[in-house]
Amino acid sequence: MIDFHYWPTPNGWKVAIMLEETGLPYTLRPVDIGAGDQFRPDFMAISPNARMPAIVDHDPPGGPLPVFESGAILIHLAEKAGRFMPHSAAGRKQCLEWLFWQAANLGPMAGQLSHFVNYAESVQAGDHSYALNRYRGEYHRCLGVLERRLQGRDWLLDDYSIADMMSWPWVLIAKPLGQSLDEFPNVARWRAAVKARPAVQRGVDLGKDLRRTGPHSEAARNVLFGQTARSLRG
Amino acid sequence: MIDFHYWPTPNGWKVAIMLEETGLPYTLRPVDIGAGDQFRPDFMAISPNARMPAIVDHDPPGGPLPVFESGAILIHLAEKAGRFMPHSAAGRKQCLEWLFWQAANLGPMAGQLSHFVNYAESVQAGDHSYALNRYRGEYHRCLGVLERRLQGRDWLLDDYSIADMMSWPWVLIAKPLGQSLDEFPNVARWRAAVKARPAVQRGVDLGKDLRRTGPHSEAARNVLFGQTARSLRG
Ligand SMILES: N[C@@H](CCC(=O)N[C@@H](CS)C(=O)NCC(=O)O)C(=O)O
Ligand SMILES: N[C@@H](CCC(=O)N[C@@H](CS)C(=O)NCC(=O)O)C(=O)O
Repeated sequence: MIDFHYWPTPNGWKVAIMLEETGLPYTLRPVDIGAGDQFRPDFMAISPNARMPAIVDHDPPGGPLPVFESGAILIHLAEKAGRFMPHSAAGRKQCLEWLFWQAANLGPMAGQLSHFVNYAESVQAGDHSYALNRYRGEYHRCLGVLERRLQGRDWLLDDYSIADMMSWPWVLIAKPLGQSLDEFPNVARWRAAVKARPAVQRGVDLGKDLRRTGPHSEAARNVLFGQTARSLRG
Repeated sequence: MIDFHYWPTPNGWKVAIMLEETGLPYTLRPVDIGAGDQFRPDFMAISPNARMPAIVDHDPPGGPLPVFESGAILIHLAEKAGRFMPHSAAGRKQCLEWLFWQAANLGPMAGQLSHFVNYAESVQAGDHSYALNRYRGEYHRCLGVLERRLQGRDWLLDDYSIADMMSWPWVLIAKPLGQSLDEFPNVARWRAAVKARPAVQRGVDLGKDLRRTGPHSEAARNVLFGQTARSLRG
């Protein structure tokens, strides 16, 4: 059995999709990040970065195994299930490249864009046009990298894999981030092909009733924005 | 033999350090990112993200193997050398967690801070105080995560490993990023312990004469800033 520490956001969906794709049994453990659950000591013992997603796999013979960072979680689940990650050395290398690429590029740049589109603009006085422009450009650049990779290929690797699950949630939300996919026809085709998978739908729907609609409350903004090392003290 | 596509920056140092630590033979291939070498088609065939570091390993029997993203490169080199990555399943899991953590958190947040400290401020009119404050906080938060991890441990994993090499270059430059380590005694101790290793010194010194001193030229700024998918067309 797997405990899945989750809140319905793009980084959470990566793992929700993989759990649904593999059918591995799991128990949903909501982490209300707007309420500050990520700073609870019991959660930080699992995820020392105080971010979700995280899992605890209770099956290994050595005792319960906690895993944080979506890239590490997807690899753990792929190895556990023996699916969705290439077995050849060259395929594995490509899988690692695209997992790290998402973690280091598409993820953080879309995250910064989302911050300035959704939060900073509505809340903070001041002109954020420089930052908005910077992160619009960076997100656009990342979509360009995907577009070239998907030229003549159905998936990021030879077969559908955790590399697709890692990047797809941050492409799903292109429109709310203000970016059309018209310029990126390969990305648009791939986005639709992943979206058509029933397990992906179930993953994206997981816990969607947990999510508040509308802007963050002031209390949630105080939890989520302006973090420093002091935030980790709970 | 390994071709090492490199420019002397923190992301390049990660791999330079590992090559020096292992003694694997390599040929330095400079990628002058201020001159736009990262957009050359021959380089983008190796690194489709148009960023260095990247390697081409000419030894595998299947033919030359290109690898991009520093996390994927470090894993490739650790497996090739059989060193600096734990062999146990639990150790390997921890290694992946901390590699992904650096790729997704410390790296991009320090990178954004560096952008606003070094470049945006000097070049762009406008008030960047919101962004500066945001990325100072995020970098501070990441140092807090390291501080807790290094409490009672010498290294990020049980032994010195690629996890240390991945994070250390972005802690080396704390002072130029405007952050003192006085608040983070465990991080300061670890920074000094890594720095004392001769191979680390050789890695950080690699190609240091390539680097221009002083601010970027206008031509370099035009290459490095304001990228979009169109930049990938070379
Ligand atoms: N690189 C991490 C990113 C995780 C992440 O940023 N999670 C966000 C939600 S999408 C979170 O937990 N935020 C809580 C906070 O910012 O305090 C991963 O891929 O697992
Ligand atoms: N996540 C990448 C980051 C690589 C990266 O950002 N490299 C920078 C230099 S530190 C670069 O090549 N910049 C060229 C550009 O921005 O065009 C890795 O860890 O390999």
